[in-house]
Amino acid sequence: MEGNKEPKSPEWWAQRAWSLLSAVRRQSPLVQCITNFVSMDLMANTLLSAGASPAMLHTLEEIPDFTPHAHALCLNVGTLSAAWLPAMKLAADVATKAGKPWVLDPVAAGASGFRLKACLELVELRPTVIRGNGSEIIALSNASLHPAKGVDSSHESTDAVKSAKALAQATGAIVAVSGAVDIITDGKRVVGAHNGVAMLQRITATGCSVTALIAAFIAVDQSRALEATAAALSVFGIASEIGMNMANGPATLRMHLIDSLHGLDEDAVTSRVKITGFCDEK
Amino acid sequence: MEGNKEPKSPEWWAQRAWSLLSAVRRQSPLVQCITNFVSMDLMANTLLSAGASPAMLHTLEEIPDFTPHAHALCLNVGTLSAAWLPAMKLAADVATKAGKPWVLDPVAAGASGFRLKACLELVELRPTVIRGNGSEIIALSNASLHPAKGVDSSHESTDAVKSAKALAQATGAIVAVSGAVDIITDGKRVVGAHNGVAMLQRITATGCSVTALIAAFIAVDQSRALEATAAALSVFGIASEIGMNMANGPATLRMHLIDSLHGLDEDAVTSRVKITGFCDEK
Amino acid sequence: MEGNKEPKSPEWWAQRAWSLLSAVRRQSPLVQCITNFVSMDLMANTLLSAGASPAMLHTLEEIPDFTPHAHALCLNVGTLSAAWLPAMKLAADVATKAGKPWVLDPVAAGASGFRLKACLELVELRPTVIRGNGSEIIALSNASLHPAKGVDSSHESTDAVKSAKALAQATGAIVAVSGAVDIITDGKRVVGAHNGVAMLQRITATGCSVTALIAAFIAVDQSRALEATAAALSVFGIASEIGMNMANGPATLRMHLIDSLHGLDEDAVTSRVKITGFCDEK
Repeated sequence: MEGNKEPKSPEWWAQRAWSLLSAVRRQSPLVQCITNFVSMDLMANTLLSAGASPAMLHTLEEIPDFTPHAHALCLNVGTLSAAWLPAMKLAADVATKAGKPWVLDPVAAGASGFRLKACLELVELRPTVIRGNGSEIIALSNASLHPAKGVDSSHESTDAVKSAKALAQATGAIVAVSGAVDIITDGKRVVGAHNGVAMLQRITATGCSVTALIAAFIAVDQSRALEATAAALSVFGIASEIGMNMANGPATLRMHLIDSLHGLDEDAVTSRVKITGFCDEK
Repeated sequence: MEGNKEPKSPEWWAQRAWSLLSAVRRQSPLVQCITNFVSMDLMANTLLSAGASPAMLHTLEEIPDFTPHAHALCLNVGTLSAAWLPAMKLAADVATKAGKPWVLDPVAAGASGFRLKACLELVELRPTVIRGNGSEIIALSNASLHPAKGVDSSHESTDAVKSAKALAQATGAIVAVSGAVDIITDGKRVVGAHNGVAMLQRITATGCSVTALIAAFIAVDQSRALEATAAALSVFGIASEIGMNMANGPATLRMHLIDSLHGLDEDAVTSRVKITGFCDEK
Repeated sequence: MEGNKEPKSPEWWAQRAWSLLSAVRRQSPLVQCITNFVSMDLMANTLLSAGASPAMLHTLEEIPDFTPHAHALCLNVGTLSAAWLPAMKLAADVATKAGKPWVLDPVAAGASGFRLKACLELVELRPTVIRGNGSEIIALSNASLHPAKGVDSSHESTDAVKSAKALAQATGAIVAVSGAVDIITDGKRVVGAHNGVAMLQRITATGCSVTALIAAFIAVDQSRALEATAAALSVFGIASEIGMNMANGPATLRMHLIDSLHGLDEDAVTSRVKITGFCDEK
């Protein structure tokens, strides 16, 4: 048995990332996505290029028939509306009851009271993983811990790692914070995924798409969701690094990112994975 | 008068495909699309690159004013919801009554009872063409012939060609089944369109987009919808073959596919069209 | 003080365009977009590649919290529905009351009575800029001046420049008409922006995207919206001209357009800007 609190070696992570990508390609997990309108195209193509099977299906009436057949679920509140929220909540509930892993992307969680409340309701349905950028995780963490304060939580923590750990502890979810280094935590262990390029921030929906890739990775290894999440973030980052070598700007990067994700081989993955941790920070 | 039940020569098909693409470019038919959120971008760009005029217009209130002006209609249930279905049905009804051809893409027809029921209701409004993959056509055909059995039609036919012929006979529509070879049938005649590349399956919305291209082709020759459908499938496949020569993966293929469709000339089309048939199978 | 009715020199326009693009990159204005489903991806990527911050947020419940924080607003009726219109109207109202500039893109304004009525209601909320193609501006102008006649305004003006001037005078908005030469007017002054390539018409959502770029430009200089609108149209056109040098068709152009917009430097902008006017036409 491997020690959960010991830092893994670079070789362990390299093999783990390749092993999970290979499993996604082999098993082609069905990933149901209820996501924003902006990201649907890139998200579906990200899943396809990684070898998974996307299903962009958001209608309340279809959830009871369809969601039990999905291997993982990806919920993203980017263009949330009151009309879509019930389907998200039902899908999360069906997935949790069926033992299927699911990921929440709390896009712009602090942008409105409506949105923050919706995110909190989804968090209560027990996502396996929550992935966002620093301000999203901070907003959600503060609101989770101090729900009465609403969007205006300026007196609360503004440190993304502390917020991520607190959110993970409060919810039981793995929490991932995207940034120059991606941080992944279960509330105790903290892992850093160092792959990726800055220009991803100039392409819409890349954050949404890596969240969907996390869903595909946890679909093939639900039992170690922290490791699968870190591996997905690293693999997506590697594809962007390789793509960046061929890119002249955001649009060529977006294209080569998808091609690179499709074409990744064992050597490209294992030689580039850069994941560090675990550290048992207070 | 040409014999409808005689196999056409390769030269006949080559000239027919080029002639129809030329007519689309010359006439620029207005194709109204009520389609899923994932496919809107690629579908509109497919129509534009072929020379047609897309109109992505889905609102119930606008159908009576707008649909009579369209030259063809494309309905796609990919991200169907209860809110969108009435507009689809009204548009189909208006198109049929105005003598305008329309195409149905029954995406994931068997994914839920809600979706299958909606597809059956649309089929009753008499589409000119129905295009799907094998499992979609099998699900729809079984449900059309045995409506009481719902989604669970595992005891019914699982042979796509037989299902397509049965669906065509039951509905009066041309039925096309996408696959390694695309099959097109009116219930008696069966035509195979052999162009295309396997990597199209790794790009979201390519199936949806070829359905829209079929709508553009039948807009310029409604009287021979089977031939127009086969030609559209072949032309799209040819564009993908030319694009594949420049592609490094799904994203570059998607780009070069559109450029190639835009740039196709007579020689590229006529030298590559590969359509076989008719065979009068039982 | 510069004379508003004097034609500006080519050098003035070149410096103005570069100065505004630089300000967008430096300030990264938050541009809220309530737009059609087809354009969301390209619009967001256009704003990101220009250095702005897009927010695709359309939900009624969120407008009061969010819209006051946006620096500009972009409304586009491309896939308008009754469900989305109230949020558009509320956002326009909030923006106007908060003194934030906003742009209206009246896509296919004349396509239905429902759509034309919605556009007229939005125009009454006092957009800073209205941008459309010739037929859209003509339809909207005729309907604004003669509201009783509805969509069928065939007896009214069919001259886009005259219609644009009349619409600007009636509404107080800057009106831009896209075409071989883009025309921008405040009802008295008329400016022509001559950059761009014809193939943009074969790419969906390029018109929508340049409207969003106008919103970003007026966000950084609201006091001279006519000049900012002309500069945005010219800069987008320049990016397309540079992109066209690398393009083989609509899809490669779309990609290189975004990369070029991201990479534009002072020399590329100032050497290529071609804006003429003002002319005080009757």
